[in-house]
Amino acid sequence: MRRGFYIGRFQPYHNGHQSVLEHIAHEVDEIVIGIGSAQLSHLTDNPFTAGERVLMITRALASLGCPFYVIPIEDIRRNALWVAHVQSMTPPFDLCYSSNPLVVQLFKEAGVTVQSPAMYERETLSGTGIRSRMLNRDPWKDLVPPAVVQVLKEIDGVERLRQISQQD
Amino acid sequence: MRRGFYIGRFQPYHNGHQSVLEHIAHEVDEIVIGIGSAQLSHLTDNPFTAGERVLMITRALASLGCPFYVIPIEDIRRNALWVAHVQSMTPPFDLCYSSNPLVVQLFKEAGVTVQSPAMYERETLSGTGIRSRMLNRDPWKDLVPPAVVQVLKEIDGVERLRQISQQD
Amino acid sequence: MRRGFYIGRFQPYHNGHQSVLEHIAHEVDEIVIGIGSAQLSHLTDNPFTAGERVLMITRALASLGCPFYVIPIEDIRRNALWVAHVQSMTPPFDLCYSSNPLVVQLFKEAGVTVQSPAMYERETLSGTGIRSRMLNRDPWKDLVPPAVVQVLKEIDGVERLRQISQQD
Amino acid sequence: MRRGFYIGRFQPYHNGHQSVLEHIAHEVDEIVIGIGSAQLSHLTDNPFTAGERVLMITRALASLGCPFYVIPIEDIRRNALWVAHVQSMTPPFDLCYSSNPLVVQLFKEAGVTVQSPAMYERETLSGTGIRSRMLNRDPWKDLVPPAVVQVLKEIDGVERLRQISQQD
Amino acid sequence: MRRGFYIGRFQPYHNGHQSVLEHIAHEVDEIVIGIGSAQLSHLTDNPFTAGERVLMITRALASLGCPFYVIPIEDIRRNALWVAHVQSMTPPFDLCYSSNPLVVQLFKEAGVTVQSPAMYERETLSGTGIRSRMLNRDPWKDLVPPAVVQVLKEIDGVERLRQISQQD
Amino acid sequence: MRRGFYIGRFQPYHNGHQSVLEHIAHEVDEIVIGIGSAQLSHLTDNPFTAGERVLMITRALASLGCPFYVIPIEDIRRNALWVAHVQSMTPPFDLCYSSNPLVVQLFKEAGVTVQSPAMYERETLSGTGIRSRMLNRDPWKDLVPPAVVQVLKEIDGVERLRQISQQD
Repeated sequence: MRRGFYIGRFQPYHNGHQSVLEHIAHEVDEIVIGIGSAQLSHLTDNPFTAGERVLMITRALASLGCPFYVIPIEDIRRNALWVAHVQSMTPPFDLCYSSNPLVVQLFKEAGVTVQSPAMYERETLSGTGIRSRMLNRDPWKDLVPPAVVQVLKEIDGVERLRQISQQD
Repeated sequence: MRRGFYIGRFQPYHNGHQSVLEHIAHEVDEIVIGIGSAQLSHLTDNPFTAGERVLMITRALASLGCPFYVIPIEDIRRNALWVAHVQSMTPPFDLCYSSNPLVVQLFKEAGVTVQSPAMYERETLSGTGIRSRMLNRDPWKDLVPPAVVQVLKEIDGVERLRQISQQD
Repeated sequence: MRRGFYIGRFQPYHNGHQSVLEHIAHEVDEIVIGIGSAQLSHLTDNPFTAGERVLMITRALASLGCPFYVIPIEDIRRNALWVAHVQSMTPPFDLCYSSNPLVVQLFKEAGVTVQSPAMYERETLSGTGIRSRMLNRDPWKDLVPPAVVQVLKEIDGVERLRQISQQD
Repeated sequence: MRRGFYIGRFQPYHNGHQSVLEHIAHEVDEIVIGIGSAQLSHLTDNPFTAGERVLMITRALASLGCPFYVIPIEDIRRNALWVAHVQSMTPPFDLCYSSNPLVVQLFKEAGVTVQSPAMYERETLSGTGIRSRMLNRDPWKDLVPPAVVQVLKEIDGVERLRQISQQD
Repeated sequence: MRRGFYIGRFQPYHNGHQSVLEHIAHEVDEIVIGIGSAQLSHLTDNPFTAGERVLMITRALASLGCPFYVIPIEDIRRNALWVAHVQSMTPPFDLCYSSNPLVVQLFKEAGVTVQSPAMYERETLSGTGIRSRMLNRDPWKDLVPPAVVQVLKEIDGVERLRQISQQD
Repeated sequence: MRRGFYIGRFQPYHNGHQSVLEHIAHEVDEIVIGIGSAQLSHLTDNPFTAGERVLMITRALASLGCPFYVIPIEDIRRNALWVAHVQSMTPPFDLCYSSNPLVVQLFKEAGVTVQSPAMYERETLSGTGIRSRMLNRDPWKDLVPPAVVQVLKEIDGVERLRQISQQD
């Protein structure tokens, strides 16, 4: 039994994340998905709550065909403790998938195997880019799974992002 | 679509919790299960990590037949903020199932509907009772789902409880 | 200009506090009233929020005839920092009125003058005693200023105390 | 009885705040004034302690003719919990006056009525602008109530701002 | 090069600690001494600050003949993160000396070697016992190194303990 | 007996710090060295843990000829409480050596004597500059004591800095 860990902030969850997870699903028996900065919401860079992100991910992966766990991970602002924090909140995992240099370093120092997942196109597929498009009223719905479009509609998420991004 | 919320510390998850959740599964479309005091572990009253409890619950409910989310909820020690904290970490829910007087009061003040679930036998089925039996080497495996027995074996959980419960 | 500091948890504010403050009002030009453990509420020992306690105190002292400030003070759980914490949240004061041995010691070590206020009858007038009477449905309204009775009625405070004090 | 809430950082309290509060005083029976980022002080952007700001506001509003409460509000860095945090620290209020987009959004999501107060001239009247003038030794005393000039003199506030703004 | 770790609360540091450390000094090249619950002071069970305890230990070990580090360790209330917390605050160590069952378990789970040090007489030599003697004005000076007697005199430590232990 | 306090982040400890401390060693009987932002590590601006910095400082000062204490100081993000926090973690000191304008102001407001130490050449000797050189593979070993070169080699510190400084 082989369990892999993948973490992101998912603000919002998009096709790049989906593609990485579909790839990981073929390599492990179970996936643990950590939602980073879980305590943040209602910020221009972090507009959605952890619970809203849980909903996006779970619905988007409904037909993944590989069991997965979705776990909110609050920041602890102590890098030296972060791996222990993650491990205490998640089922035990054997390897971590990440391309983030800090995450890679922290897991390596903790003795956890790290793999860099096949990378999606960062220029078009990034949370920053998609939030920008939402603010500029450029098309964005093709960049996220249909389930995410639906969740954002239910929570009036794009309107929230626009409101909190106004100048004071 | 009707989503219900149920919270416990699940130290460990036992047949009482299982029976309540099987009951709730017939009344709602989805269940959000909150793991309370998620940050605590390695204590006589809270021996298991949130991640270990996620594993117990997910495996034990594998054949529930109702979609569910398992979400670790760290304590915030601010009762007046607790409902907002829970709501930020979970998909939106319509009603809360609880018999805990404080939980009932906090959700009522926040305007959330609360129902008291059909109660299991608290005398035989309680985390406190089961941890006691583990410490006293009394039989306890019949009081929890088979999946919990297996998780505890994998993490050497009973041995951990015994070790940390020794007198200094 | 002479400013005095007085702190309590005021769960609830009662005639003993009122009598001490009326006494202090004759000795100083302004009073700073700190509401301790401001972050706590909905607990058997700390049922009321800081805001509710602000309301009790402000109304009860409406005709004090001495200007006063009512300042919620959150706990910091670091005794060595507590005086600096209090001083950062309050207008500067010249002396502290307290009979609490720890408060006396902390202010003395910080070089602040401390006076022990004329004491009220602790046996009949104490937050613990009044909360007990509320729970046991014994008479309690004569032990608090009329304004406190009114605030408690507005917030349904006694009912809240009874609900959260039930056994799980 | 109608109670309104108004929040600012008041670094320092200035004529713009004063004018808004005088306006609100005609619309409500009582005003609750929240001092935001109460825990911050001795920073270029937040030079004054919460207690010092309590003093500025209380003195400046001495002849407002409308009862008011001045409540320090520490940051919690959890936007989804912020309204509950504010409400726990303040007497209950019916409406919030704010032009800050985030504050407006958070109160709206919490179901609290929000009004945008008649706006003062942000270009000349802003904390940032006034702190800049203090640092550059440009005239600033006409931009704040006389009581604020006096408080700043008592605490040697401008000198503090200049000292902490020096380059290391 | 072999470095050993030893932790205690040292409220106060006594002859039992001294004897254990003298023993450890023969087994390792350097000793790292952690002061637990460093953030606590001015409490009946934790009367002395971390800085005061640093002073007691450093002076008492002046002629130990083995290099040592004295490091205050604040509590983190997250047992699953505690070893990582300790390791981030201390020079790397090879083994831990402890008889505390929780400390033993946490280090073992983290893969650190643990040894139980030769034990002192817990009945006569314990922080609790010595604080009790101080409160009851029973003899206690023979139970601690002379340097500790001197530090306690300099900080007026016994008087502080007596003052904060009074009933309110 | 005269004790001086000196604080820095020491990321890493370099010849400028060494030179200041050698100077202070001639003016006082004992030195307390505070390691600021002790909780931070694995960041581009704060790559090394408190424990690693303890090691660098202690080894580099082995032949200082003046007793010294090395104390990790975690941030508290409350400037008004910072001096009390430092004082609770350190042996009592009589004067503080600092050129940092904020540190100077905070200690002055707390009534502690502050001296500006003889300054080293900030342009060549600064943590920022040295970390830059490490990243750019420019020579840096001559800017730190030999003991620091050795510690960085033992912990593979330069490699860590390079890894965490990569773009995501």
